[in-house]
Amino acid sequence: MPAPDRKLHLNLNFLSAGSHGAGWRWPGAAPDSFVDPAALVAIARLAERGTFDAVFLADHPSMPERSDFRPFQALEPTITLATIAASTRHIGLIATISSTYNAPYNIARRLASLDIVSGGRAGINVVTTADRTVAGNFGLEQAIAHATRYDRAIEFTDVLKKLWNSWQDDALVGDKAAGLFIDSTRIHPAQHRGEYFQVRGALNVPRSRQGHPVILQAGGSDDGLELAARHAEAVFTAAHTQEDSLAYARRLRARAVALGRPADAVLILPGLVTIIGGTETEAKLREAELAELVPIEFGLLWIGGLLQIDASRLDLDAPLPETLRVPDDGITTFARGALAKARRQNLTLRQLIRSQGGGGTNHRPVVGTPEQIAATIEDWFRAGAADGFNVMPDVLPSGLESFVEHVVPLLRRRGIFREAYEGETLRDHFGFSRPCAAA
Amino acid sequence: MPAPDRKLHLNLNFLSAGSHGAGWRWPGAAPDSFVDPAALVAIARLAERGTFDAVFLADHPSMPERSDFRPFQALEPTITLATIAASTRHIGLIATISSTYNAPYNIARRLASLDIVSGGRAGINVVTTADRTVAGNFGLEQAIAHATRYDRAIEFTDVLKKLWNSWQDDALVGDKAAGLFIDSTRIHPAQHRGEYFQVRGALNVPRSRQGHPVILQAGGSDDGLELAARHAEAVFTAAHTQEDSLAYARRLRARAVALGRPADAVLILPGLVTIIGGTETEAKLREAELAELVPIEFGLLWIGGLLQIDASRLDLDAPLPETLRVPDDGITTFARGALAKARRQNLTLRQLIRSQGGGGTNHRPVVGTPEQIAATIEDWFRAGAADGFNVMPDVLPSGLESFVEHVVPLLRRRGIFREAYEGETLRDHFGFSRPCAAA
Repeated sequence: MPAPDRKLHLNLNFLSAGSHGAGWRWPGAAPDSFVDPAALVAIARLAERGTFDAVFLADHPSMPERSDFRPFQALEPTITLATIAASTRHIGLIATISSTYNAPYNIARRLASLDIVSGGRAGINVVTTADRTVAGNFGLEQAIAHATRYDRAIEFTDVLKKLWNSWQDDALVGDKAAGLFIDSTRIHPAQHRGEYFQVRGALNVPRSRQGHPVILQAGGSDDGLELAARHAEAVFTAAHTQEDSLAYARRLRARAVALGRPADAVLILPGLVTIIGGTETEAKLREAELAELVPIEFGLLWIGGLLQIDASRLDLDAPLPETLRVPDDGITTFARGALAKARRQNLTLRQLIRSQGGGGTNHRPVVGTPEQIAATIEDWFRAGAADGFNVMPDVLPSGLESFVEHVVPLLRRRGIFREAYEGETLRDHFGFSRPCAAA
Repeated sequence: MPAPDRKLHLNLNFLSAGSHGAGWRWPGAAPDSFVDPAALVAIARLAERGTFDAVFLADHPSMPERSDFRPFQALEPTITLATIAASTRHIGLIATISSTYNAPYNIARRLASLDIVSGGRAGINVVTTADRTVAGNFGLEQAIAHATRYDRAIEFTDVLKKLWNSWQDDALVGDKAAGLFIDSTRIHPAQHRGEYFQVRGALNVPRSRQGHPVILQAGGSDDGLELAARHAEAVFTAAHTQEDSLAYARRLRARAVALGRPADAVLILPGLVTIIGGTETEAKLREAELAELVPIEFGLLWIGGLLQIDASRLDLDAPLPETLRVPDDGITTFARGALAKARRQNLTLRQLIRSQGGGGTNHRPVVGTPEQIAATIEDWFRAGAADGFNVMPDVLPSGLESFVEHVVPLLRRRGIFREAYEGETLRDHFGFSRPCAAA
């Protein structure tokens, strides 16, 4: 049973022009906002005005297949977040980082640096990057096998923690009179010798105000669950129903407990796509107008990629064929979610695509008034199906403006969301204590 | 013969509390300024007030041996530079990046991102990282051999350029009415298959205002010269005499010309350590006071590291033994420079250490009045021994304040330095044209 005084957590899943495939074509949107630092900062400040816990940047280090149709995550996330850090004061900053295509020393250091320049607001979303196009940018013909990637990710995150905890909090002495800058007896080399990594030294960065960056995870597979159970302090999940989300939460918590962690050690933050209107009719009209702006090929490439099929041969106005299956080696959580939703709601392919941002998003959409959005948020929250949400407005900035101006006040009135920031660091916002350093 | 209208270039070599080993102990210095974003930004803004071309961050991804004695480059440079970018408008931002411990796709993307958020002000100083302690942080027992590291660095930089030039400048169409975001026929995969790297795709970042980041290099070895001749647009050198600098410039230019580049394709920017006083006596007093604040062990570790010897067994008050030699596998330029200087000036070991910032710097020091500093700068510049300098104030911020307030006006009066920024990008400041993209 959730504690009665627990508070909701809201992150902005900051996807260029919004989660809808047509966001960039909406009136007022500037096509180059995905590479415009002023536009990126303005969105983050808007989320900060809404006292969101954090902005979160997904990532994918390769040119996307569907770049003809809409913007994508071009800029490297830690650079974007350092830019945002300089123009914000409270909001957390969560970067997606691939454990498959990076060395842990480099990432420990870069994220620790972001954590320091932001005053303790950084978080890392550790992903393993399934994609074959990314593999090709890093000297591989194929992506590494799923289980190996996750094994590596678990060890990668182990190394991050060793490095982040390698300085005692009192290591930086800075005694000008005595001439002692650092007491090097208070710094402890990582001495890591594992299966994937050997890392000898200590990190060359002191600990931050929050100790070290918050660790998040986003994969729903069994291997992903293991990574989350071991290391994650919060998870970004994809669930279209409370039942699915509760089932996931139970599995994750059982596994975390088996590893000796408390049952409430991991926050569950499902994605929530919002299409908001002053009335339900207005919201539906907005959804319909957005749908008109996405070519159907975009949606077909989306479902084709998920199910690893040529979707152009399917009938758009019929239910999905019974024979379609979740492929073994894809983004299984998203594929399973889409298929299950289509079958549960008896949708045609066209209806499925349309209800998923024209093929722009894999997460659960809600279309309605601020009151309806706030109600479903509270409902999931009180049921324990979510500790908060990874909010994905249809269009940026307008969809986020509606959320901040109209939904956030309702959540506050319902007593489940903060009136103002109560702390300084991302750990403060999430209600986590400061992790211990080496001793 | 240099063109009569050529202008001097000044970078700030931004070393935590200054280049002198005692900088952090100077009155007014805050020991934690090396990890304080406000302090880092304040220094960069001061350099921008002096219309410097760029701030430059050296880098070393491991805990330094001498951390007991003074601050070091802790924060990852691209994060620091993104922080600085957000609070400056003109000054260039040059990050040191190791080609040995990074994948080129990641670096091409991160530097391109810094270039975009800064409005075209990024530069990359490609280094190969000789150090064994760094190797230990990346799974290696020993550093890779010198020649192999430079071979790899040359190919690494090749790949950076292919990726940075993979988008035509007109690839981002952003036609909201037609629904065409990117014309993917104007984006060309790198298709790189080399000895060290295979990189298939295009970069996922558009070109910046200046096309792509400026490429710099800093090694004086023969292998380093090859990297510079092929790829560098500017070099950070270490020369204690005009003769050495001219000899280096001739060798580099001959090699660049042999590769088909123009003779003036590469700017030569020697390091210049400044200790400034209102009178010569004041400057010497400042040097003496700084020297008092550095333990001699710091200097002995410096010279011991350079020459790969136990320097504690040497006589501090005698000239360096004739038997000392430059080690084959070290930072040969710095070792050679220190030995040659001690012999040329007939210095005792203590005098050598003291004149090199107590062991804080390997670069050429000048101690004197603003007039004397400006005179030597002009002298080297007019002789063609330098196109500018990598300025290394003894103490930050006070040494930089003196330089900006007192030396810069003299350089302007001498007609060799800009009165104000004349362009927007780092390429503009350096007088480079915009590189061509793929076609």
